[in-house]
Amino acid sequence: MNKQLAMILVGGILGMGVLTAANAAGQKPEEVVEYRKSVYTIIGWNFKPIGAMVKGEVPFDAAAVARHAQYVEMMSKAAPEGFSKGSGPDVVKDTEAKPEIWTKWSEFQTKMTNFQQEATKLAEVAKSGKEADIKAQFGKTAETCKACHKEFRKD
Amino acid sequence: MNKQLAMILVGGILGMGVLTAANAAGQKPEEVVEYRKSVYTIIGWNFKPIGAMVKGEVPFDAAAVARHAQYVEMMSKAAPEGFSKGSGPDVVKDTEAKPEIWTKWSEFQTKMTNFQQEATKLAEVAKSGKEADIKAQFGKTAETCKACHKEFRKD
Repeated sequence: MNKQLAMILVGGILGMGVLTAANAAGQKPEEVVEYRKSVYTIIGWNFKPIGAMVKGEVPFDAAAVARHAQYVEMMSKAAPEGFSKGSGPDVVKDTEAKPEIWTKWSEFQTKMTNFQQEATKLAEVAKSGKEADIKAQFGKTAETCKACHKEFRKD
Repeated sequence: MNKQLAMILVGGILGMGVLTAANAAGQKPEEVVEYRKSVYTIIGWNFKPIGAMVKGEVPFDAAAVARHAQYVEMMSKAAPEGFSKGSGPDVVKDTEAKPEIWTKWSEFQTKMTNFQQEATKLAEVAKSGKEADIKAQFGKTAETCKACHKEFRKD
């Protein structure tokens, strides 16, 4: 077997593997990306108003913080489904996800877990309604967002 | 005041009202639409696999149903925020939301409440793990989706 043919075969097999993984639950890569973007849109929609409150830009509203934080937590747990293999920029162009997500998978997983843990704590602290604690935990959660975006999201 | 000037003034005032309403929480109309689409993307992402299971297309998985149903319920409660005034097709072109949502607001609200109630029941029934009950409640929930889409969503 010549080298070129071997490359084609390996590429084909990898390509099938990639497609199979993305379609394991019946979703097309484009649908996975749409889902992924939707998850982060809802995270942002709920995280930003907490930020505006802890920064004093809008009046503090404990009930609103608790509600928003619950959505951030729920969505942090929904996020991993949006990163199935074969949904990277090599397959779907319109994405800010970097290929490093899949080439440095365990590092990405660690950062995802950090985010989930801090988001869960934020939801817990939010139930207490204690503004100072919420402010501190908001900061910690935001750090986990930044840490992941810095390495794994295109600017 | 001539009629043309009056029309311009009224149009301007209405226009401002529309923008103010959409920006009440600091979001631009485009952001509201993006949020709205995201909510329904996540509803679909979670509702479809339940459908595939109740139709017998994929093996029934009680834990997966419970998880998906919880997301459908949470998102049904998150949906109303995505329909703030001034986020209709007169302001944002790329939307399937019909203007009737805002001109028949109370009817829309009723259909939204129906969906939320059936989605909540689905999440409750899903916890029981009883396949027949889940199947029946999935059907009832799907009906509320269709009822609203038929009248308030473009084909």
